[in-house]
Amino acid sequence: MRLCIVTETAQKAGDLLSRIREIRPVVHSITNFVVMNSTANVLLALGAAPIMAHALEEIEDISAISNSLVINIGTLSSAWIESMESAAQLARASMKPFVLDPVGSGATKLRTKTACNIARFSTPTVIRGNASEILSIARVGSKTRGVDSVNSTEEAMESASTLATSLNTVVAVTGSKDFVTDGKRSLVIAGGSPMMACVTGTGCAASVIVAAFLAVEKDALLATASALALFKLVAEKASIKSAGPGSFWVGVLDELYNVTSEEFRLNARILSI
Amino acid sequence: MRLCIVTETAQKAGDLLSRIREIRPVVHSITNFVVMNSTANVLLALGAAPIMAHALEEIEDISAISNSLVINIGTLSSAWIESMESAAQLARASMKPFVLDPVGSGATKLRTKTACNIARFSTPTVIRGNASEILSIARVGSKTRGVDSVNSTEEAMESASTLATSLNTVVAVTGSKDFVTDGKRSLVIAGGSPMMACVTGTGCAASVIVAAFLAVEKDALLATASALALFKLVAEKASIKSAGPGSFWVGVLDELYNVTSEEFRLNARILSI
Amino acid sequence: MRLCIVTETAQKAGDLLSRIREIRPVVHSITNFVVMNSTANVLLALGAAPIMAHALEEIEDISAISNSLVINIGTLSSAWIESMESAAQLARASMKPFVLDPVGSGATKLRTKTACNIARFSTPTVIRGNASEILSIARVGSKTRGVDSVNSTEEAMESASTLATSLNTVVAVTGSKDFVTDGKRSLVIAGGSPMMACVTGTGCAASVIVAAFLAVEKDALLATASALALFKLVAEKASIKSAGPGSFWVGVLDELYNVTSEEFRLNARILSI
Repeated sequence: MRLCIVTETAQKAGDLLSRIREIRPVVHSITNFVVMNSTANVLLALGAAPIMAHALEEIEDISAISNSLVINIGTLSSAWIESMESAAQLARASMKPFVLDPVGSGATKLRTKTACNIARFSTPTVIRGNASEILSIARVGSKTRGVDSVNSTEEAMESASTLATSLNTVVAVTGSKDFVTDGKRSLVIAGGSPMMACVTGTGCAASVIVAAFLAVEKDALLATASALALFKLVAEKASIKSAGPGSFWVGVLDELYNVTSEEFRLNARILSI
Repeated sequence: MRLCIVTETAQKAGDLLSRIREIRPVVHSITNFVVMNSTANVLLALGAAPIMAHALEEIEDISAISNSLVINIGTLSSAWIESMESAAQLARASMKPFVLDPVGSGATKLRTKTACNIARFSTPTVIRGNASEILSIARVGSKTRGVDSVNSTEEAMESASTLATSLNTVVAVTGSKDFVTDGKRSLVIAGGSPMMACVTGTGCAASVIVAAFLAVEKDALLATASALALFKLVAEKASIKSAGPGSFWVGVLDELYNVTSEEFRLNARILSI
Repeated sequence: MRLCIVTETAQKAGDLLSRIREIRPVVHSITNFVVMNSTANVLLALGAAPIMAHALEEIEDISAISNSLVINIGTLSSAWIESMESAAQLARASMKPFVLDPVGSGATKLRTKTACNIARFSTPTVIRGNASEILSIARVGSKTRGVDSVNSTEEAMESASTLATSLNTVVAVTGSKDFVTDGKRSLVIAGGSPMMACVTGTGCAASVIVAAFLAVEKDALLATASALALFKLVAEKASIKSAGPGSFWVGVLDELYNVTSEEFRLNARILSI
């Protein structure tokens, strides 16, 4: 693939970061137990306002005060699935952007079925997963190894495009390179750090950042590419200063808080394909 | 408002910190998923012993071995409400101090109702919330924006006093300044850091520290003011050395562990009003 | 007791660490809410692959793709107990190693009963707990103070040996010294740091490291001693550089990631008794 940096997109990405810090969008997460704390901290460091709530009884009230939604299936159970589906339907009904993070789809029937149901019947604004997860939604029969990908981003690109077209959504495949597509337009995001695979919930963190960007930008492809470029930039900066995964994650939160829109504009590695 | 430091109270606050480290009180939390890890670490760094348990079947046994209780409604669901109410009743029956942290009260009917029910029918020793949360309990009709306050501490002071009087409890409104009242006596706590708003669960952390102080001091106003003054001192110290919210939180735990009673006595910014 | 370092065992321990990083075993945890994030990060820093899943509907699928299992009863409820028992049975049926971490056993009837049931009817490969927890399983009637031990490792050594023999399993008592026994052979692990008691979930972290070692070594006594020796070494290194419990935990993850097999071989303090 031939890639070149899309300067105009990087400019817009910087503007979106400014807008998040100005508007401070409320991002509602129905997410897994493992990353509730870390993704709430990611949103706060970014300048957004997290809210975590899963009880069916309050989904409607929460939906009314939030600007975007993340559904993350990392630690599923029946009652939570019901809340997720209800929140997804409410988001669609109110034209509110929402991200589906199909953690471990392909690893168990319960996860694959839940991810596919939400993908097909509620049409997320964005589906963000690793290559194996995206493949498992695109075509039944793919396998994942626990919650890690056994496939490269490249292997999932064609399926991601087809899935994006058939569902009329944006699909993001994240990995050492990220691939974002709406079926017609596609972008690649470079940068990041291998250290991202040594900390739990970095994919989940990417998803909540995408949700924050969606809250301030209607072009879901642009919002998603901007979010992933910001995360890769911040991770790259943090990894340089870190001594291992512990200090790396501390650094990610610090860098996310400190990165300026101007710095992001100049360093967002969003590439056309 | 005219404020001056209450030296005598600061002296006592220092003594209470020594007593916590000596007695190592067991603090039982029924709390939200987001802050379970971070508030357990806050209690350990302080010198107290955390225990997290929510199953109705073991509430009685846990109550029997714990010295104080925190009920935090940050990620509610029906089964948990039942356990919270049961634990609150047991605490009252055994004269054990307990803190209600009404996270997000005012944001959803479920939360407002749960917070009001526990506040009115179980009479917490202390209710600690941000301004919007306290207002939502004091007078039906106030709104909150997710879990953040849209009101200043000042706006909630009168309502807090009225609420404290009517429930015969201590009410603490935390924010850039903290206000603590039992309806007759009131104290203000200064210090802290804007960085506290950039990390999830700092309010929840304040609540567990209050519970630890309540375990060693019957005067709930003094215990609460001491706890909040300690947290503000520690946060201020941590923010000076930190590069962002990641290193700030690491610093909070380190400072909480290292702060001496003597240093606290000299620097507790507890003000009379 | 007379102790001397077992050089041969330390050699093997180093080999096991290399094997974990090469094979990258999938460790399935059904664990408590407090430590889900921290223990997932411990496994990733070590070089293993964590998966957290508790829904009964997916236990069979998760079991099929994982190499070992941890059952940790730190925040119990009925539905979770059912999943734990099912996962334990599946592990036994498929000869997959599993660790029982009886958090708080002895503190409540629910926990003692759950721990004893799993210990007796599913025969864990390893039971790892603090002295009070192990005593509560070994002989009904022992008490624990919340989740902390009120007994020393020494007090639990005889009971641990008897328990190991009667269940035909390995029992590990962790504390300032760790004691590991299969009823016939026993080993002691020295090192570590008092700071380990100032951070939540260090016992739980020890258990997931044991599970990772069990995934690459059939001799459960050797695997357990190696795992505990690694954790003690890493904690000791981290505590030297840390300013308190916050930076200590960051350091633990960094050191776990950076420690080499060679360094571990030379510094594993596994002692014969």
